[in-house]
Order: sequence, then C-alpha cells, then structure tokens
Amino acid sequence: MDMEKVNSMDFGEFVDVFGNVIERCPLIAAAVWSQRPFSDLDDLEKHFSAFIDALPQSGQEGILRCHPDLAGRELQRGTLTAESQREQSGAGLTHLGAEERRRLAELNARYRARFGFPFVLAARLSDRDAVPRELTRRLRCQPALELRTALGEVKKIGRLRLADLLGVDLARL
Amino acid sequence: MDMEKVNSMDFGEFVDVFGNVIERCPLIAAAVWSQRPFSDLDDLEKHFSAFIDALPQSGQEGILRCHPDLAGRELQRGTLTAESQREQSGAGLTHLGAEERRRLAELNARYRARFGFPFVLAARLSDRDAVPRELTRRLRCQPALELRTALGEVKKIGRLRLADLLGVDLARL
Repeated sequence: MDMEKVNSMDFGEFVDVFGNVIERCPLIAAAVWSQRPFSDLDDLEKHFSAFIDALPQSGQEGILRCHPDLAGRELQRGTLTAESQREQSGAGLTHLGAEERRRLAELNARYRARFGFPFVLAARLSDRDAVPRELTRRLRCQPALELRTALGEVKKIGRLRLADLLGVDLARL
Repeated sequence: MDMEKVNSMDFGEFVDVFGNVIERCPLIAAAVWSQRPFSDLDDLEKHFSAFIDALPQSGQEGILRCHPDLAGRELQRGTLTAESQREQSGAGLTHLGAEERRRLAELNARYRARFGFPFVLAARLSDRDAVPRELTRRLRCQPALELRTALGEVKKIGRLRLADLLGVDLARL
C-alpha cells in the first residue's frame, strides 16, 4: 500500500485499516486522520506518537489498560485481536508449559497490582524466555519511569503494525 | 449495580462493563478508572465528560469517527455494537422504507463530506421522523459549533448508557 492510497482514504477506510495500530484504540487512528496527508511510514508513526504524548497521564494509562496480558486469559479464551494473537504466537507464548504459564500469570498479576495497568512489551522483538525476565526487571522500576517504558513499547508495537500494513520491510530501512 | 461495587472493580472489570459508554472508545473508560472512587452517576459522568473536553480537537473528532452512521451500512450488515443496535432500533431506524433509507444515506454522506465525521445523535431521545429533520438542520451549522453539538450528543448517549449500567431510572431523577 503506497502513501497516495493512504492519503486518499476517507476516515471510515482509514480507521478500518489503521484502527488497531494502537491496540483496541481506534480513537487514535481516527484522530490521526485529521493530520493527513502523510509523507511516509515515519511521518505516519510520528503522528500516532505525538497523539499519545499529548494525552493526560490518565489517557496514557488508559491506552495501556486496553492491552491484553501476555500469555494471559484472552490468549487462553481466543479473544485476542488478530494482531496480538500473531505477535504472542510468534514469540512462542502460545506454547508455554503449565508451569511457565502459571509463573507468567503470577508476574502479570503483581505488575498490574503495582502499576494499575498490564505489562506491555513488543512481543515480536522478544521471546518466551525473555518475557518473564523483562517482566521481573520492570516490576522493580519506579512508576513514572515504568509508564514511559510501557508507552515506548506501545509505540514499537505500533511501528511494526504500521510497517506490516504499508508493506515496509523494517529490516531494510 | 451500586457505586461500592463499581469502586471495587479492577481496571479489567471496569473496562468490560463501561468500555462502550463512549462508542468504541474503551480507552476513555480505561482512563476514567484512574479517577475512582466515584460517588454516583453524575460524578462518573462528569469524569467521562472532562476527559472528552480535555482532548485536542483531533481526538474529539476521533471519538465522533468511531460512531456508526444512523441507519447506515453497519446497521444493514449487523456489525453495530449491541448498544447502538438497541438505540437505533428503539428510534425505529431498523424499519425504514427504501426511500427513507436512501434519503438518510444521502444526508449522512453530505454531512461526513462537510464536517469530516459522521452525524451523531442520541437516537433514544429522537425518532425516525426527527432524525432526517435534525440532520438537515445541523448540516447548515458552522463546523466549530457543530463539533460542540456532536460532542454534546456523545455525552447524552454516554449518560443514558451509564444510567442503564447502574440501573438508574433517569426519568425519576
């Protein structure tokens, strides 16, 4: 998909295509449409990031709260978004043993209780061994720093999803 | 549901219950959870409204763009949210004749082209005769005023949905 096509979309088409760049937050794609035309992937990504950065803290926490746990209840129930399912599957999180799942569930619960939002990580840049290690490390961070780290992961996930939709190979950039 | 129950919800439960108070914007309920505890319906509603008012204009337009057309494509396809389906059905919009549907589709398209977001109206406070009349009237408004009017409708819809969820009879308030 080239940018000429993207820039010609009405808001309905744009939200259909880009509505889940930020997990379960079509509002953000719908807001970004106001900023068209876009010159390229970086430009489009910049507008998604700028919108997130401009939100009050409760809104930034709200974005995180729209994300599922990694290897959590929604994966078990099959209610993940298609994008999350692919990402968690690619990181090997759909094939954990019972003990690994139990351990992750416990860490996820401790993280949610400490920060008031779920642990968010760009699973495509990670794997099943790294996830619990990173979760354990981030559990010890200060809340203000952890909010910034988590939003950084949201943006990484968004960049990868945008690249998929635009057919851009990020490894070649 | 009493407020004690609401105030005891973790963010996952809160978003499950209140995630569609603002149509297809669970981010907003997820953000409002940061403001708990809530004293009553009015207090909860106040926080939803305050979040909307604090958004940049692109975000406010984004909220509107997450709404379906009245008697539009999504109603025909059966892809409305449960709440929208009930509201449009209650206003008689599921039983329009072909000519009424065609007329509304044309007005909706003109409105979207003029303002860059769909026509939003609290359908439960309207009916099938009033909808095209109100659409025709609002098509002539200035964009800045129309944005405010449309957001006012979003808030009315949200208040009615909140009252349903909390089991409050608004007619008795």
